[in-house]
Amino acid sequence: MEDPVSNLINTYHELNAAVVDELDEEPTALGFMRFLAKNRPFVARHAARQWKAVKDWNTDYLRHAMENEAVAVAVTPHGNADAVVEQEDGSLVFVEPHETFELFEHFLGDVQAGAEAVEQDGSNVKYAQTQNDNLRNEYQSLYVDVPKEIPFARIALNEGADAINFWLGNQRSISALHKDSYENIYIQVRGQKHFTLLPPVEMPCVNEQLLPKGRYAPSVKDSGKLEVELDHEAERVPVALWDPDSPSKLTTPYSHMAKPLRVTLNEGDMLYLPSLWYHKVSQSVGQEGVAVAVNYWYDMDFSGQFWASNNFVHDVLSAEQSKPAYPKLEMDGKGL
Amino acid sequence: MEDPVSNLINTYHELNAAVVDELDEEPTALGFMRFLAKNRPFVARHAARQWKAVKDWNTDYLRHAMENEAVAVAVTPHGNADAVVEQEDGSLVFVEPHETFELFEHFLGDVQAGAEAVEQDGSNVKYAQTQNDNLRNEYQSLYVDVPKEIPFARIALNEGADAINFWLGNQRSISALHKDSYENIYIQVRGQKHFTLLPPVEMPCVNEQLLPKGRYAPSVKDSGKLEVELDHEAERVPVALWDPDSPSKLTTPYSHMAKPLRVTLNEGDMLYLPSLWYHKVSQSVGQEGVAVAVNYWYDMDFSGQFWASNNFVHDVLSAEQSKPAYPKLEMDGKGL
Repeated sequence: MEDPVSNLINTYHELNAAVVDELDEEPTALGFMRFLAKNRPFVARHAARQWKAVKDWNTDYLRHAMENEAVAVAVTPHGNADAVVEQEDGSLVFVEPHETFELFEHFLGDVQAGAEAVEQDGSNVKYAQTQNDNLRNEYQSLYVDVPKEIPFARIALNEGADAINFWLGNQRSISALHKDSYENIYIQVRGQKHFTLLPPVEMPCVNEQLLPKGRYAPSVKDSGKLEVELDHEAERVPVALWDPDSPSKLTTPYSHMAKPLRVTLNEGDMLYLPSLWYHKVSQSVGQEGVAVAVNYWYDMDFSGQFWASNNFVHDVLSAEQSKPAYPKLEMDGKGL
Repeated sequence: MEDPVSNLINTYHELNAAVVDELDEEPTALGFMRFLAKNRPFVARHAARQWKAVKDWNTDYLRHAMENEAVAVAVTPHGNADAVVEQEDGSLVFVEPHETFELFEHFLGDVQAGAEAVEQDGSNVKYAQTQNDNLRNEYQSLYVDVPKEIPFARIALNEGADAINFWLGNQRSISALHKDSYENIYIQVRGQKHFTLLPPVEMPCVNEQLLPKGRYAPSVKDSGKLEVELDHEAERVPVALWDPDSPSKLTTPYSHMAKPLRVTLNEGDMLYLPSLWYHKVSQSVGQEGVAVAVNYWYDMDFSGQFWASNNFVHDVLSAEQSKPAYPKLEMDGKGL
């Protein structure tokens, strides 16, 4: 008999094409529920083309709207916020960015300059990516330019957005493969985002391990440099080690079975990224050297069978890993 | 660590109450999709009260509408169509009913008479339960009295009903615990139906085994008696052996974890029975000694993760059963 985990991944692939469905316009609430019920993503091309943000946001507009406002900025040496870093002794640490607060105008200038720079110049990478409902808080002077809710999601889920986030960075920032327990509606405003997506059943492929936590902090010797500071108090966090763009490294016995979905969002496009999907995200800047996006997080529903089933995959993998290997039982001279 | 299968069932119960949601009216298409997305049942009380069938069907009306029509009738000794029968040698067989074709009027009279009888009288039990879209075929003269579609399901699923079935029997017929790969909308017209429901994640509780198939056939010696005739050609079929009403018999190590949902449908009530839910069904007759129901089957969607996840539970159980028992690995003198 085939191994159950391999069979799960194969069955999923037999029943689901490894492509992101493309819609010409945003779905109705019912149409959205059909995707949500299947936990499958879609891109609605140009669905946000009429948004004021998509029509009007350029660096002058942003600079003016955010004049004299201080914002939280994630600073990393390589654009690797919330990512795995290998220590000198070979051990792996999940490292959060150094966070600074600076004038938006100053931050924006650095992002634009960084769009021209090459990594070898040694400059740090800045990214506004706080994901703490920042568009209704720090960036509230820009919140007027986007809808208060995504209507189809608001109606379908019968709840308001849990968080609305503003993202601004350049091509040097990459979000490593991870998942969120939210239904995510993601809108590209300036530049492009390049998503690599894996469904939740590919959990066995991504090599989730519990890693110690750390954070970048300015070096004592050279405050312009960032160094990893281990947090010895913090609980270990589960982190996907496998990178679909380096598929032969840090693999599990199942990594080769993954069929990543890839999709690029252009200005005005909208992505539905379903809860618990793994996603890796890189970006390209627009004409003015920035990539700008907005996303709406709606709470996922933990009832029904979906959450419990994903937990089960995790538990079966853990149980397998904690069992000793043993030979196949031979019966009648044949393997089972 | 807790056993993954136990954890699956417990997690499901923590996130889902073991009750059937009650609605005051039939849901909208969107409301229905919210239940379908979670694979959770509901009862819409009185939702079919305005149906002509619910208002008008009595035995005179049925007899008149079906005058001179022959119908397929399932005949069994104990009301046990599609059920497990223990053979004299103790082996178990999945037995289909003996099927006869008879005048509806004659069949109806037998069902009414049976409503008065006690099993000890030795008479066979008759049940119209063909589930082959019979309301649009054999019973088409009654089809005019029900809606052609369940509107909320038709709109939500964007497809017509795959089958519409008519059911007529008495309290002597019981449908043993089983599941269907359909989204089922079930309407009680006369009498009551008593459903016992188990969610798909309780598969480990129900003791599904592959059984040989058989069929009731008139005895050669006494054609009034039915005997099991084994079908040696047929493939074995998966059958749930555990009965939630005899919970200490034919158990698995997980049966005690099941939390059956129980709900009674009265005349005019509508049940949404989601795909792959196990259900056992008994019935009570109305004033005229018959229980009458109608159901609409809509194709389930095999895409997304739901089907693959349920398959995975099955495969993990099978793999466990085919593995030799081995002792727990001891580390530092403690169990894992």
